[in-house]
Amino acid sequence: MTDAPRILLHNDDTDAMKARLAEAAPDAEIATCNDYAGLAGMLAEFRPDVVYGVCFAGRSGYPREALLGPDGPRWITVAGSGVDHLRMWDEEKVTVTNSAGVAAAMMAEYVLGAILHFAIDIPGLMLDQAAHHWESARQVTPIHGKTMLIVGLGHTGQAVAARAKALGLRVIGTRARPVETEHVDEVHSPDSLPGLWPRADFVVVSVPLLPATRGLVGAEALGAMKESAILVDVSRGGVVDGAALVNALRGGAIAAAALDVFDPEPLPVDSPIWDLENVLISPHCSAVYEGWGMASLELFIDNLARWRRGETLANIVSPARGY
Amino acid sequence: MTDAPRILLHNDDTDAMKARLAEAAPDAEIATCNDYAGLAGMLAEFRPDVVYGVCFAGRSGYPREALLGPDGPRWITVAGSGVDHLRMWDEEKVTVTNSAGVAAAMMAEYVLGAILHFAIDIPGLMLDQAAHHWESARQVTPIHGKTMLIVGLGHTGQAVAARAKALGLRVIGTRARPVETEHVDEVHSPDSLPGLWPRADFVVVSVPLLPATRGLVGAEALGAMKESAILVDVSRGGVVDGAALVNALRGGAIAAAALDVFDPEPLPVDSPIWDLENVLISPHCSAVYEGWGMASLELFIDNLARWRRGETLANIVSPARGY
Repeated sequence: MTDAPRILLHNDDTDAMKARLAEAAPDAEIATCNDYAGLAGMLAEFRPDVVYGVCFAGRSGYPREALLGPDGPRWITVAGSGVDHLRMWDEEKVTVTNSAGVAAAMMAEYVLGAILHFAIDIPGLMLDQAAHHWESARQVTPIHGKTMLIVGLGHTGQAVAARAKALGLRVIGTRARPVETEHVDEVHSPDSLPGLWPRADFVVVSVPLLPATRGLVGAEALGAMKESAILVDVSRGGVVDGAALVNALRGGAIAAAALDVFDPEPLPVDSPIWDLENVLISPHCSAVYEGWGMASLELFIDNLARWRRGETLANIVSPARGY
Repeated sequence: MTDAPRILLHNDDTDAMKARLAEAAPDAEIATCNDYAGLAGMLAEFRPDVVYGVCFAGRSGYPREALLGPDGPRWITVAGSGVDHLRMWDEEKVTVTNSAGVAAAMMAEYVLGAILHFAIDIPGLMLDQAAHHWESARQVTPIHGKTMLIVGLGHTGQAVAARAKALGLRVIGTRARPVETEHVDEVHSPDSLPGLWPRADFVVVSVPLLPATRGLVGAEALGAMKESAILVDVSRGGVVDGAALVNALRGGAIAAAALDVFDPEPLPVDSPIWDLENVLISPHCSAVYEGWGMASLELFIDNLARWRRGETLANIVSPARGY
């Protein structure tokens, strides 16, 4: 058991977190910082062992250098899943853990809801409803029997796969180490993607943003997909090439897209994406549910106990892999 | 093996059906009738053994008397699931079978899509999108861990239950004979509904229309539901009391409803239901997918083989039960 830990909470609202943490670790010294600008000063003054935080006000201006600098902690816990705002770091000097998995079920529900939105043609139903028009020739389109390609079989991808299988879809997917994965009919290496795009009725993108994944879904990939394909992006802005996507959606290369992530965020008010009729936009909220922050904190509290017992931490992120 | 059967196809478009049936039963004599008005004459002239048909142009004017009269067949196959347009009949004189189950998976997808539509607040996302507004405080609401009440655990109800369980919901339901049912945590008798309404986050109505179910979801039931409840009706118009529903939705007794069935249909252009903001309307199409008609015909072809072998038919409907 180490001495009483010094913990800095870095988020826009830290009151509830601080109260819960104080209850779970009564001897801990806890400080808070609610903006980006003040972090460097707080680190110098408080010298925390651990910083628990998230990229809460956009990536622009995130105080990465301060956090990874000489006053930074030995352990950084990311309350979310992506760590692209931190890379690279020296794992000899600092351990980074994340909270991957806390929101996987929620994100899988978002993915299914988005696919069904387009498959059932809810936009068309809403237009008919607004016109008081009863379209007696209307049909719905089943998703069972169709093929879903999941690019990235991490926590989120696997949660999507489990639900898709239960709904009768054929699930194919890629992961960096293509090992057999529950609920997935075929697991391929990312190298195989060119041959997989044409097979998919639904493409779910759930990889981290890494040099190898930046622009992964670009003009070539979109051009190889079915014209009836529905794309759902719950990864990070930059994995899907925004300009190529606008072209693909305008030109009918694919049928529709549900997008939760953008580059940059917020999506600029004059972005052409807003006005595409076959797009559903959400403001990077597919993982953000009531209780998400506290569920994430509970993971941290469990990990803190491991740390104090000198055990290996859960959810350690490899700076080389990025997840 | 009986003699070559005389089969009448009664639907608005019978060409593809007739071709497939002629292929499957080459010796059968097949006639077609594509409207309601001509059925009586066709029955008198052709004297079919079997009529395969559906209520294809609304219940109003459906030639029930002709079909069940002295020139009617010994066997009526309903291409859909509900038989409220035929009741009652004398099962000593005519056997009625239906095609229940053919559309169960599709209807379950509609139910899930409708629930996720409201749970994710897709209407709100669409409003923000139209305004180019990035709402950074937006959250999504999980459905896992919530409770779904399925009123009527027939083919459709059970298909909904299987998917809801896979998505982590608690599933409770009612069926006339409350026997243990796969994927359902608690099966109750319909008498228990007053105690079940307050427990449900999502209420799915999938019972046939019967004297006992007409108006089943009325003011009292709606008033007993949670204010956050989402109702999905894929039963028959008349099971949910339309006027009571409008009041409940206007007054905030429940949060939202997805409605595929109405009384009458088509929903009149001046119905107040069209303009309710927390309603999703579909024109009785949740079971109508490309290939549905032919899938239903394949069931009939299987049943026809049983009939010719003198075996008991599948999917016989009890006139007393109505399903």
